[in-house]
Amino acid sequence: MVWVGPEAEAPSGGQKLDVGGGILMPGLIDCHSHLVFAGSRLGDFLKRMGGESYEALLSGGGGIHTTVAATKSASDAELLALTQGRLARLAKSGVMTVEVKSGYGLEPEAEARLLTIAGEAARAPGMPKVVRTFLGAHALPPGRDRKDYVAEVVGAQLAACKGLAERIDVYCDRGAFTVEEAEQILRAGQKAGLGATLHAEQVAWTGAAELAGRLNIQSADHLERVDEAGIAALAKGGVVAVLLPGAMLQLRDSSPPVMQLRAAGVPMAVATDFNPGSSPVLDVWLVASLAVLTMGLTPEEALKGITRVGAQALGLKDRGRIEVGAVADLAVFEPPSGEKADPRTLLMYMGGHTARIRIQGGRVLADSYQAAIEPSL
Amino acid sequence: MVWVGPEAEAPSGGQKLDVGGGILMPGLIDCHSHLVFAGSRLGDFLKRMGGESYEALLSGGGGIHTTVAATKSASDAELLALTQGRLARLAKSGVMTVEVKSGYGLEPEAEARLLTIAGEAARAPGMPKVVRTFLGAHALPPGRDRKDYVAEVVGAQLAACKGLAERIDVYCDRGAFTVEEAEQILRAGQKAGLGATLHAEQVAWTGAAELAGRLNIQSADHLERVDEAGIAALAKGGVVAVLLPGAMLQLRDSSPPVMQLRAAGVPMAVATDFNPGSSPVLDVWLVASLAVLTMGLTPEEALKGITRVGAQALGLKDRGRIEVGAVADLAVFEPPSGEKADPRTLLMYMGGHTARIRIQGGRVLADSYQAAIEPSL
Repeated sequence: MVWVGPEAEAPSGGQKLDVGGGILMPGLIDCHSHLVFAGSRLGDFLKRMGGESYEALLSGGGGIHTTVAATKSASDAELLALTQGRLARLAKSGVMTVEVKSGYGLEPEAEARLLTIAGEAARAPGMPKVVRTFLGAHALPPGRDRKDYVAEVVGAQLAACKGLAERIDVYCDRGAFTVEEAEQILRAGQKAGLGATLHAEQVAWTGAAELAGRLNIQSADHLERVDEAGIAALAKGGVVAVLLPGAMLQLRDSSPPVMQLRAAGVPMAVATDFNPGSSPVLDVWLVASLAVLTMGLTPEEALKGITRVGAQALGLKDRGRIEVGAVADLAVFEPPSGEKADPRTLLMYMGGHTARIRIQGGRVLADSYQAAIEPSL
Repeated sequence: MVWVGPEAEAPSGGQKLDVGGGILMPGLIDCHSHLVFAGSRLGDFLKRMGGESYEALLSGGGGIHTTVAATKSASDAELLALTQGRLARLAKSGVMTVEVKSGYGLEPEAEARLLTIAGEAARAPGMPKVVRTFLGAHALPPGRDRKDYVAEVVGAQLAACKGLAERIDVYCDRGAFTVEEAEQILRAGQKAGLGATLHAEQVAWTGAAELAGRLNIQSADHLERVDEAGIAALAKGGVVAVLLPGAMLQLRDSSPPVMQLRAAGVPMAVATDFNPGSSPVLDVWLVASLAVLTMGLTPEEALKGITRVGAQALGLKDRGRIEVGAVADLAVFEPPSGEKADPRTLLMYMGGHTARIRIQGGRVLADSYQAAIEPSL
């Protein structure tokens, strides 16, 4: 963006776009997703709704492992088409930057394949930009020795993925990887020049938030069970708390301690956590509404959570905001019927909002309302 | 519908429509909505999110009264356009029958006006059919004497509305109308030939469910606070329990006792309760997902709740089902990316589903995928 301000002070020349009473937002940021996978987890959903726990499904060889197998069976073309379909849906809702994790490969080539496909999918016109995160430490493959697998993650997997990803992530939890393993993996990623993030304190308290703070990583995500010491560490370490209301609702979980995070000054982002098993929700507006309704974020916090704080969680300072120097990613939304042009009305009306006009890097996208453009001032 | 069965046994002649791996559903039923209104309740939303109760907003002269004033100020043309926009959005999601309540007039002519507009809005091509419900007893207008107002509801208001509505409703709750007042109003409606329904046991337990059972009305809606005696009365009286997960979530309320309703054999419908104050959600798929996630309905119960049991709540036996003798209202949905053609996947993926093909009364609607139609068998 080269200039932002009132119309009367606008520099002459350039293009004029009448947004016609719409709600202008910076392009939305979805800073936590698992977009590249194949196959269904309907079976898991039915079991969960019948009372089985996510942890029990995973430790029984289902959960993530079901998706790893289905993803392995899918061709590159199939995976690309699935990923493009999901990116297109996010794009329609105004998302212009989305983080995409690997984690359904769990082998060096399979992890690299997912990151490659994520990059290819985002090349199609009008797609959101992707920030790719290597998540080889998503689950321990059945039958693998822990120590041996962690060695592979920091060895062959990291070597295969570091050129394809901007970040590294670990699912640190009971039933997944320990705090010690997470530290080893995150340090290896940081040494390889990657940004770092962590699935922390979701199923059980582990002390992962304290680790996140100590390593000054970009974000700690989930945090349903973070304690006071963990919150203090996040604040001290400058770590963004990424809240994932879709997973909280799907797992019928309790809320992260939003009041305490707020009081400690920890920035709070909100993301879809889109994945087939614990958060099958591809609508960043819906999760922002849920962050208000089920977690107690203020509407203003939720709006920042899917824009500037979402960007901050990805280490990006030049998007998620409308100001000089930022990338000119913008989206215009229609207020719900009868409502004012106030972005908080989009949170009040839960989900399903489609951007009427999308501007990516200063360019009005072709599927947007071209008729609204006047040739010049 | 004149015939339903496997392709091999299909009678010859007629039109062939290839649904191409889509999910075939009966046209959806939204059996509780307040669609006809003008104005914003963003102010109430912000106060509620800050901790104020819905009841306090209403008793302070806000809440419903804010919408009554805004609706009064709006022209017929404005109200018609707002209502059509909302109906169109429901239509896109596959809804083919929607109940629409008055209740933002609270005067004889003003109530009749809303019902008239609801009927007009539904006349546009491709709109859902509306079942209209007279809800003069939505709130006591500030400054009005209770007895005098109830007399107006059963007198001048009912006289003005009975030819425009198929049903009558009362908001029976603490801060609204008493069980005794509700009985008087519902009996007057039944005497005038209207079906009857009741907002029951939401904010506080009042005994409204027992009344619903005793009067054998069509449905009792909300029921967050229904007790065992109330559930037994609903079962005995053949009353459908209409569950409204949007309002439950927006008001951060607890769940109705689904296990007990199920055990007593009370049929459970699910509806949007779309209204600007306590359920700004226009997506019947989203509330069906919430019914599973936040109330504990099984996926099968939730699907029945937005189809055949929703129709039952409206006293309609000929829709919400795919069988000989039913109206041929059908909708075809694309499974979420990578999923099987199983309607439960639409519940797992929360909201935002658009019907790819819509068939209303046996006719494929013009905005549907016409290319899929082959001229004849």
